[in-house]
Amino acid sequence: MATTETLTAERILATTEEVLRRHGAAKATVVDVARALGVSHASVYRHFRTKAALREAVTKRWLDRTSDALSGVVDAEGPAEDRLRRWLAGLFEAKQHKAGDDPELFATYTVLVGEASEVVDEHIADLTGQLAVIVRQGSEGGEFVPCDPDVTARALFEATARYHDPAYAPDWSRAGVEDAFTSLLDLLVRGLRP
Amino acid sequence: MATTETLTAERILATTEEVLRRHGAAKATVVDVARALGVSHASVYRHFRTKAALREAVTKRWLDRTSDALSGVVDAEGPAEDRLRRWLAGLFEAKQHKAGDDPELFATYTVLVGEASEVVDEHIADLTGQLAVIVRQGSEGGEFVPCDPDVTARALFEATARYHDPAYAPDWSRAGVEDAFTSLLDLLVRGLRP
Repeated sequence: MATTETLTAERILATTEEVLRRHGAAKATVVDVARALGVSHASVYRHFRTKAALREAVTKRWLDRTSDALSGVVDAEGPAEDRLRRWLAGLFEAKQHKAGDDPELFATYTVLVGEASEVVDEHIADLTGQLAVIVRQGSEGGEFVPCDPDVTARALFEATARYHDPAYAPDWSRAGVEDAFTSLLDLLVRGLRP
Repeated sequence: MATTETLTAERILATTEEVLRRHGAAKATVVDVARALGVSHASVYRHFRTKAALREAVTKRWLDRTSDALSGVVDAEGPAEDRLRRWLAGLFEAKQHKAGDDPELFATYTVLVGEASEVVDEHIADLTGQLAVIVRQGSEGGEFVPCDPDVTARALFEATARYHDPAYAPDWSRAGVEDAFTSLLDLLVRGLRP
């Protein structure tokens, strides 16, 4: 599959995701990725120095898709409470889609996520950072109680773990899950009102 | 190890726990249990009809230890908010002890719990039932907002999953975990105040 397109990091990562989808996390190799791109594996290594670096980068790309989508909610207009609800519901929905629409790829990424603790820590810091911006704005605007936004963001993130931690993915499609999620949101949002 | 003590279900279960501690969930057999008790395996089967029944019973006994201890908090005197905090903190503390004091046995029971979904469902129903009693009393006494106690109990239980679900056990000894837990409790309790 020779190609005349420039070999960019993004092309390599998109192809890596395809290879992972096909072969699974255990079997996918850099040679498979190079072959699918019609290039030598040395060309791939020019962009990602090791197989581990490539796996980390593709994992980060997968996680960033969620945080990038949510950052739009942080920057939107409107009351902080509204945005907080939309943000938490958006995270849950994104996870539901990732788990439900392509379960094999989700399982593969769950393996990769387990290997990439630094990437995951950054991802969680990114997400709780977004939450903290909403909490700070709500707090400063008098919509929420005065609080340490980082601490509160962390508590909100932990409190909703059932709806974003992949360990709970099998529960995300059970009957009544949306109602339970809404009850939890109501409780959390009430806890922030002055 | 012949013995003249009467062979009760409780003695069998206590010995089963010892055998599990020694051999692990994969290797422990009914014959091991019978041998440790100095009785025939037929005597054990008279109390527990199958190996699966014995494993379920010992798992239930392990889980009940936590719920029995917590039921004292439900029935105690004092404001519902106080009891709610003590109950949730008590659950976290009990889990921390189970995981930290005897990690091998905890790992063994984590395997057994994974096999015994009915026992686990009953255990969770038991725990959320206890929480619902506190919430109902608080709600009826005007300390908490009017709410459906079962729904709210479920939300509280889910919100604190990070502090009782064995999947998170590795986090229970990390620095700052107590502070994070307290922040979460504060947020949840504020959400219940009228």
